[in-house]
Amino acid sequence: MNERSKDDTESRSRDPGRAAVLAGMLDNLVARGREAAQEGRVADYIPALARVDGRRVGAAIVDAGGRILESGDSRVAFTLQSVSKAIALPYVIDTIGEEAVFSRVGREPTGDPFNSIIRLEASSLRKPYNPMINAGAIVVTSLMPGRTGAEKVEGFRAWAAPLLGLDELAEDTEVSSSEAATANRNRSIAWFLKELGLLDSPVDVTLDAYFRQCATLVDAASLARFAAILAFDGIETASGRRMMTPRAARVTKALMMSCGLYDGSGSFCVETGIPAKSGVGGGIAAAAKGRYGIATYGPALDAHGNSVAGTLIIRGLSEALDLFEI
Amino acid sequence: MNERSKDDTESRSRDPGRAAVLAGMLDNLVARGREAAQEGRVADYIPALARVDGRRVGAAIVDAGGRILESGDSRVAFTLQSVSKAIALPYVIDTIGEEAVFSRVGREPTGDPFNSIIRLEASSLRKPYNPMINAGAIVVTSLMPGRTGAEKVEGFRAWAAPLLGLDELAEDTEVSSSEAATANRNRSIAWFLKELGLLDSPVDVTLDAYFRQCATLVDAASLARFAAILAFDGIETASGRRMMTPRAARVTKALMMSCGLYDGSGSFCVETGIPAKSGVGGGIAAAAKGRYGIATYGPALDAHGNSVAGTLIIRGLSEALDLFEI
Amino acid sequence: MNERSKDDTESRSRDPGRAAVLAGMLDNLVARGREAAQEGRVADYIPALARVDGRRVGAAIVDAGGRILESGDSRVAFTLQSVSKAIALPYVIDTIGEEAVFSRVGREPTGDPFNSIIRLEASSLRKPYNPMINAGAIVVTSLMPGRTGAEKVEGFRAWAAPLLGLDELAEDTEVSSSEAATANRNRSIAWFLKELGLLDSPVDVTLDAYFRQCATLVDAASLARFAAILAFDGIETASGRRMMTPRAARVTKALMMSCGLYDGSGSFCVETGIPAKSGVGGGIAAAAKGRYGIATYGPALDAHGNSVAGTLIIRGLSEALDLFEI
Amino acid sequence: MNERSKDDTESRSRDPGRAAVLAGMLDNLVARGREAAQEGRVADYIPALARVDGRRVGAAIVDAGGRILESGDSRVAFTLQSVSKAIALPYVIDTIGEEAVFSRVGREPTGDPFNSIIRLEASSLRKPYNPMINAGAIVVTSLMPGRTGAEKVEGFRAWAAPLLGLDELAEDTEVSSSEAATANRNRSIAWFLKELGLLDSPVDVTLDAYFRQCATLVDAASLARFAAILAFDGIETASGRRMMTPRAARVTKALMMSCGLYDGSGSFCVETGIPAKSGVGGGIAAAAKGRYGIATYGPALDAHGNSVAGTLIIRGLSEALDLFEI
Repeated sequence: MNERSKDDTESRSRDPGRAAVLAGMLDNLVARGREAAQEGRVADYIPALARVDGRRVGAAIVDAGGRILESGDSRVAFTLQSVSKAIALPYVIDTIGEEAVFSRVGREPTGDPFNSIIRLEASSLRKPYNPMINAGAIVVTSLMPGRTGAEKVEGFRAWAAPLLGLDELAEDTEVSSSEAATANRNRSIAWFLKELGLLDSPVDVTLDAYFRQCATLVDAASLARFAAILAFDGIETASGRRMMTPRAARVTKALMMSCGLYDGSGSFCVETGIPAKSGVGGGIAAAAKGRYGIATYGPALDAHGNSVAGTLIIRGLSEALDLFEI
Repeated sequence: MNERSKDDTESRSRDPGRAAVLAGMLDNLVARGREAAQEGRVADYIPALARVDGRRVGAAIVDAGGRILESGDSRVAFTLQSVSKAIALPYVIDTIGEEAVFSRVGREPTGDPFNSIIRLEASSLRKPYNPMINAGAIVVTSLMPGRTGAEKVEGFRAWAAPLLGLDELAEDTEVSSSEAATANRNRSIAWFLKELGLLDSPVDVTLDAYFRQCATLVDAASLARFAAILAFDGIETASGRRMMTPRAARVTKALMMSCGLYDGSGSFCVETGIPAKSGVGGGIAAAAKGRYGIATYGPALDAHGNSVAGTLIIRGLSEALDLFEI
Repeated sequence: MNERSKDDTESRSRDPGRAAVLAGMLDNLVARGREAAQEGRVADYIPALARVDGRRVGAAIVDAGGRILESGDSRVAFTLQSVSKAIALPYVIDTIGEEAVFSRVGREPTGDPFNSIIRLEASSLRKPYNPMINAGAIVVTSLMPGRTGAEKVEGFRAWAAPLLGLDELAEDTEVSSSEAATANRNRSIAWFLKELGLLDSPVDVTLDAYFRQCATLVDAASLARFAAILAFDGIETASGRRMMTPRAARVTKALMMSCGLYDGSGSFCVETGIPAKSGVGGGIAAAAKGRYGIATYGPALDAHGNSVAGTLIIRGLSEALDLFEI
Repeated sequence: MNERSKDDTESRSRDPGRAAVLAGMLDNLVARGREAAQEGRVADYIPALARVDGRRVGAAIVDAGGRILESGDSRVAFTLQSVSKAIALPYVIDTIGEEAVFSRVGREPTGDPFNSIIRLEASSLRKPYNPMINAGAIVVTSLMPGRTGAEKVEGFRAWAAPLLGLDELAEDTEVSSSEAATANRNRSIAWFLKELGLLDSPVDVTLDAYFRQCATLVDAASLARFAAILAFDGIETASGRRMMTPRAARVTKALMMSCGLYDGSGSFCVETGIPAKSGVGGGIAAAAKGRYGIATYGPALDAHGNSVAGTLIIRGLSEALDLFEI
């Protein structure tokens, strides 16, 4: 995955002065993030995740010219986990249409835990509140084309790989197998969704695809490329190629803004003003509109399940580069 | 199932005068129940249930001498559905012990719908509130001996048949198959229970047993015999044989009293003062302590899912025979 | 309040042998209760309550002949607190009628904390679930005759005093004043009830009456007399006088059975089979149908807010005297 | 209030071509909004609100040069209602500091109704989730300087008037009196907040100020001036004067983005990408960062309580002027 060398990518920068300032800033934030990460905890609900080194911290920024700047462990592979929700959504919107998607999942933030099942029963909405919580994301996965879990996830990865600047996407099969074995809560949610008539594929197929989608391997560098495509409303700026519709990008970012960081979404929004999506694998993708695609890696998590280093780095960048976009 | 003739059972009554008064009263209540049933609706979430004739109404009373009095459709077979919760509970208590059962399920009423999943997530109890709601009943079924659904349900029926005065218990396989196909909410609940570590057998095994337990066929006459055993704290009074421990009977009745009629449990308790358990198959079993075992059949249900005719008949009997026991 | 001497009351017992056995049993249970009370904690949300001596334990039993048996601190005065809910309910039922009461408050147990406000918003019932939780009890108080809090509470006490075998009922004004100053949650509940159109008197008047009703002083001996009237469906057995309608007694007992001991109601019901009502002042009133009125005092509370000694004593009596009535 | 003439303000526009296009667009949207408003309903929980003419529709836009463009009923006075939450928040942030405010109220969206009390009891956060729901707004009002309701609301209005381009702010006293008489739910919430220790002033003082804050009179023209100050991060662009700190503006807009339109906040955010705040008086203020302050008036509301015409107009402007800022 890491065929691009750091030297190579940095040399592409045409404004060495400004790039150097930015590089220094990023290195500094990664260093501070590494320190702060000591107070976080690596996700431990799966052995394969618990084994990860909590001191890893990396970050990458892709600018309007498509140039990438990296620091720290930006080439260390990690599993997307919930970050995949922000990739699956535009994929499905561009595949079956915005209206079809939102007939089965809402667009409202909840204030509830990401894996909550309560509103499926208690709310008159009769569908998950948004695609950034597990219930909504499982609906989105069920809407992916494909009759089997493999077909679904292959379609998802085939669509996503170019947006991540990669030829293909690999899977951490140990993680996906573990998820399948342990994620009883997600099975509970999926059967409730089935009861509500919201799943477009069988529960087992949907969950197979969902667990494998979450176990997709990326690194901060490739994730920053995806974030940049969101930031530029679907355009890969280096090539000028449109990778997703503007609408898919905007809808996704709007939902990341209000629902992207679990229970800490609102606070993060007030602090950074940038739409972002985190995952318990340690990744965060953030899309600063018309400015930068940003991705961080740092598997030590805070109480909300968000990367301690990652949120620190993005807060720092927002402040330093005035990325607050609201 | 109906090898006993009505004439035969009634002839066993040794106080014809009193029996005649009671018989007249019961016939009258059944007639009134049949009229009231026109306002109810047969359960329709399964085709096999929806096909049932809503005008059927029957009742049976077993007295302290073991004599049975019947009226109306007391020999029409119906599926136990939730009434099975009141049979499964004493079976499991007497098989693995009260403490083992209540380490995995609570003893508190909830005020929530019978199929609610909310408290599994929201409550600090971390177990279903009681064995009369689906979540608790599924835990109870998982505690039945047996490695397969068939072994579990066979054990349950082998234990229950003598209490119902029958040699063996049959299953409405159309109903059990339909349940298995449609009961996604119960699957959702079961996976949540698995997540909480409360199931003692695999989800599929547990649900197979649970759906078949609910589809067990009885009639009001046999159900009244079971109710009489509860009423006499575990003794079959005709033979003097102990069929369950006094403790199993009392615990079951106490939970029927506060949780036996779905959302209408409290009102029914205030109105009748008798512990009872209803099912959407149309049956109700009620145990008037030291007096009578009572069972009714009437598949037309009220808004709470309780038999319209059955609740009317039991209210009438409670008032006429002063069965209010609190 | 304590003009009756213990010797005097005990001498009225006409079966000294049996009375002696019962007296020994009660003394033994009070002793065990006193030991167990060390693990409990006195209510401390009001200074006047926090000051109480947690080692106090007393009990009293009134039998079918109206004879009273007492042990320990049975003449120590304490405030009724929530026990008053079980006195206010029959008062209001006999004053304005069962139907009028239950048009404004339900009859269903909840599983929620006694001071929960959630269902007032979340439930489609649009009224408190039962009169044993604060919301329901406040509605009941609003239904008492009287334009002022003083008129309401005086009416309540005038009705209740004879049932407690007293000429008049006093108030712990320090407690009632403290409640008024600190009980913001009850104010919140009352305004919500006002919003729902369920209060029959102004919020301030209702709460004034409610706080004073809760601060009414009794002792275990007098409370046992009230419990005996419930146990005998409204009759004071010594005099044969009817003190409340049978229906008021039965409705009250049915609701005590399913909702009388806060979050521990179901467990207590399964363990004792007797309807009872507890209060954070340390009192419990229990009515064993056709057998005994029982009251205990022990201000050291368990996690549910129920008297540690009191629940132990009533469990012991239920077992020893076979009072399980379901 | 309306001393500025429309002609006067429009003549200040220095790009008549562009202004004419914009004016035509706005007139067209107002016309379409007026038509759509027929499907909405005027708030009717207060007689003074119910009397309003639901066919009124107006809009105003203030651009980067401070020029205002108006259409329709842009000078019709209406009460701020919940729009006041978006004015009170920056006032209190700039008065007592961001940290002091958010120690008492959260920054997370909820998905719950604006007047929900449930999370105050159910959530471990122990404070209202955000300042855009009633519970949070009442906390914010309690944090305003002043010992009386009058002092609080006068301070609020003195601070707000210049931001609205007015000398002073009037109150619809009929509305404020009505609120005080009918808003029992808000009293319930306030007492719960008192219980949680979150109110910095007595309940009565706080609610008096809150009801009067909500009853403050504005029109779309003046509200657009306030929105422009938010849009330019605190600067009144015409004069270059800083009216609030950048931080107060950004925090407010971030919370408007995720919580500004009641239950419809997420959908509105996905559709427009502009932070906005609505009120049941019919107003909406929207701040398009670095572009425009927008305000609409249209008292006919949709099922979420948002102005039918207002949301239509802002959606139209966002699309036509590409204001989607995420």
